[in-house]
Amino acid sequence: MENFIYSNPVKILFGKGMISKIGKEASSLGKKALLVYGRESIKRNGVYDSIAESLSKFSIEFHEHPGVKPNPVISHVREGIKKARERNCDFIIAAGGGSVIDEAKAIAAGAKYQGDPWDFFCGKAKIESALPLITVLTLPATGSEMNSGFVVTNEQTLQKYSAGSVHSFPRTSILDPQTTFSLPEVQTSYGASDAAAHLLEGYLTTNDKDSEITDNYVFAVFKTIISSSRRILSDKNDYNARASMMWSATLALNGQQALGYKGISFPNHAIEHSLSAIYDMPHGLGLAIVIPAYMRHNIEKISGRLEKLGENVFHVSKSAKDAISAYESWLRKDLNLKTRLSENGISKDDIPKIAENAFGLAAMWGMGISKKEIEEILNRAF
Amino acid sequence: MENFIYSNPVKILFGKGMISKIGKEASSLGKKALLVYGRESIKRNGVYDSIAESLSKFSIEFHEHPGVKPNPVISHVREGIKKARERNCDFIIAAGGGSVIDEAKAIAAGAKYQGDPWDFFCGKAKIESALPLITVLTLPATGSEMNSGFVVTNEQTLQKYSAGSVHSFPRTSILDPQTTFSLPEVQTSYGASDAAAHLLEGYLTTNDKDSEITDNYVFAVFKTIISSSRRILSDKNDYNARASMMWSATLALNGQQALGYKGISFPNHAIEHSLSAIYDMPHGLGLAIVIPAYMRHNIEKISGRLEKLGENVFHVSKSAKDAISAYESWLRKDLNLKTRLSENGISKDDIPKIAENAFGLAAMWGMGISKKEIEEILNRAF
Repeated sequence: MENFIYSNPVKILFGKGMISKIGKEASSLGKKALLVYGRESIKRNGVYDSIAESLSKFSIEFHEHPGVKPNPVISHVREGIKKARERNCDFIIAAGGGSVIDEAKAIAAGAKYQGDPWDFFCGKAKIESALPLITVLTLPATGSEMNSGFVVTNEQTLQKYSAGSVHSFPRTSILDPQTTFSLPEVQTSYGASDAAAHLLEGYLTTNDKDSEITDNYVFAVFKTIISSSRRILSDKNDYNARASMMWSATLALNGQQALGYKGISFPNHAIEHSLSAIYDMPHGLGLAIVIPAYMRHNIEKISGRLEKLGENVFHVSKSAKDAISAYESWLRKDLNLKTRLSENGISKDDIPKIAENAFGLAAMWGMGISKKEIEEILNRAF
Repeated sequence: MENFIYSNPVKILFGKGMISKIGKEASSLGKKALLVYGRESIKRNGVYDSIAESLSKFSIEFHEHPGVKPNPVISHVREGIKKARERNCDFIIAAGGGSVIDEAKAIAAGAKYQGDPWDFFCGKAKIESALPLITVLTLPATGSEMNSGFVVTNEQTLQKYSAGSVHSFPRTSILDPQTTFSLPEVQTSYGASDAAAHLLEGYLTTNDKDSEITDNYVFAVFKTIISSSRRILSDKNDYNARASMMWSATLALNGQQALGYKGISFPNHAIEHSLSAIYDMPHGLGLAIVIPAYMRHNIEKISGRLEKLGENVFHVSKSAKDAISAYESWLRKDLNLKTRLSENGISKDDIPKIAENAFGLAAMWGMGISKKEIEEILNRAF
């Protein structure tokens, strides 16, 4: 078990009706907010009104920055920074899924930086401060509500890159599982695939194979993602399943999922980000395509980890191959995701281009994976 | 799943050599510390010297308050408060197990309060502020290093009572598993029993039976406590087992073990505290006596919970009775603890006295358990 430093300052308000507390939470942060959101869903499901009502009780004014895309883009981040500056916003509120929260984190940091916000992503600048951020999560998946990282796409260069800083933790995150009742089925699937992927990246890439408490934590959260998504897909109004799913997705990437692991990396994310950047593919779907291929490609190197995963999560006896099959079968049969590139309309001829893009990110993240290896994985994913 | 608010500001430094960072951590808190510890063990195992050396690098002076008892007493808390005031200490350092940390929390709060510190425990006063606290944990068991509660015994009134406040979270807690190599075997057993008890209290007393993510979290931590303590008892120098045990004990009472649970209480702690208060019994041993009796007494009411526990932690098929047997067998055979009052030299005639004492605490904690019921449980524990 490797040494670690862990600290997570995010205050979580979880449950029914918790959005009504946002005014009080915000009242210590200032008088003017920038409300960042996506499209109309937060207006349809009542989240927008709950936020507005609670803020008005504390005389907090807010300006709006709608239109965040599922893979948020840097041009829209720049617009948000401009608004936050022009309107002298004291803090940011993000209402939506991981994309909205990620863009809000970028705006919060960018508003305090004189250069271009892409500098944070390409390694040209470090985040030294940020406006405070409150999030209202409506889609369990990315864990962004309780961590300090964020991902944005540069639509000019087709790079989907990440940034992060201790200043980028939300102050408070509000998770009301009721807000997820109206999600389309496919979003539950993408979210479950995404959250599971966060567990798998650390679990499969650690060089330290003896962090038993963290392995067991990973299995516990993974099993809950499987059982909760199954319940949700059979009854979309199952509150307790929605609640367990929502909290599981947070626990899958709030730092605890890799404590004691050593030298971990995110190879599947590096590859998936290129699919999102080039094809605007949903992140959870992209991961469902890449990870089974990554597992098959690395089966010998990680057979022990796969066997343990299979036994503890999928109840298949000691076989790495069966573990991969069980995982892919969960993605295909339970979540109804198409786990091959070919099934998602991507041409085999594109593979070198995708690999080229992914290699750029992998190199920036300092991962020892070659372009050739990425191509091999993508060929397996075809 | 019940609504919850969760926030845990403790910064954890975990692993080999982490104690050497205490000077840097302390440097923002002031120039003068009160070092609270127990007996000579921190001098024998090098913890004292590591702390002193690191503090001196940052020119931090420290005064000493040794002599904390395994069940810390209020008279010694009062002495510590006096020292902290006389020496104008800016902050407190606790180096030891849960008892030392608990006493340090009481001193930290008491130093900022004009009345008697017992006021916090008997409900006469609320903690409004406290000196900052850094802990160096040397015995995994109580979870006090990452929560805001603490327990002290009033040796005049024979009351072992608890207090807590948001001001009582340690700022930083340092956990170096190497410091536990020199623990006597029995301390590993007491610690494992204690940590498991923290998981069981919430799990068994919740009225909400559908918080799947938290149930799975409880099982994960419990299973790790079982496997790690087994490894430690067969090889005391197994670092990774020590590390998993140490982090598990923290996770067993840092708040996450009961998120979403409803109306939970600590009946076994209320009863055990009377054993500690009257007989100075080690807490982990007392819990190993009380909990199996509590389970047998409540078997009908909590059969569903016991069955699920048995299946997920002890791999016994759907039977509440078998789950209790498996749990008690773990305590007796693996941990080598004597799980009956009679085996621990306590007379049957004492039971009414113990029940009387326990009832006082249970009533103060607002638990709906009668004196008669406590007596029945104690009779089963005999």
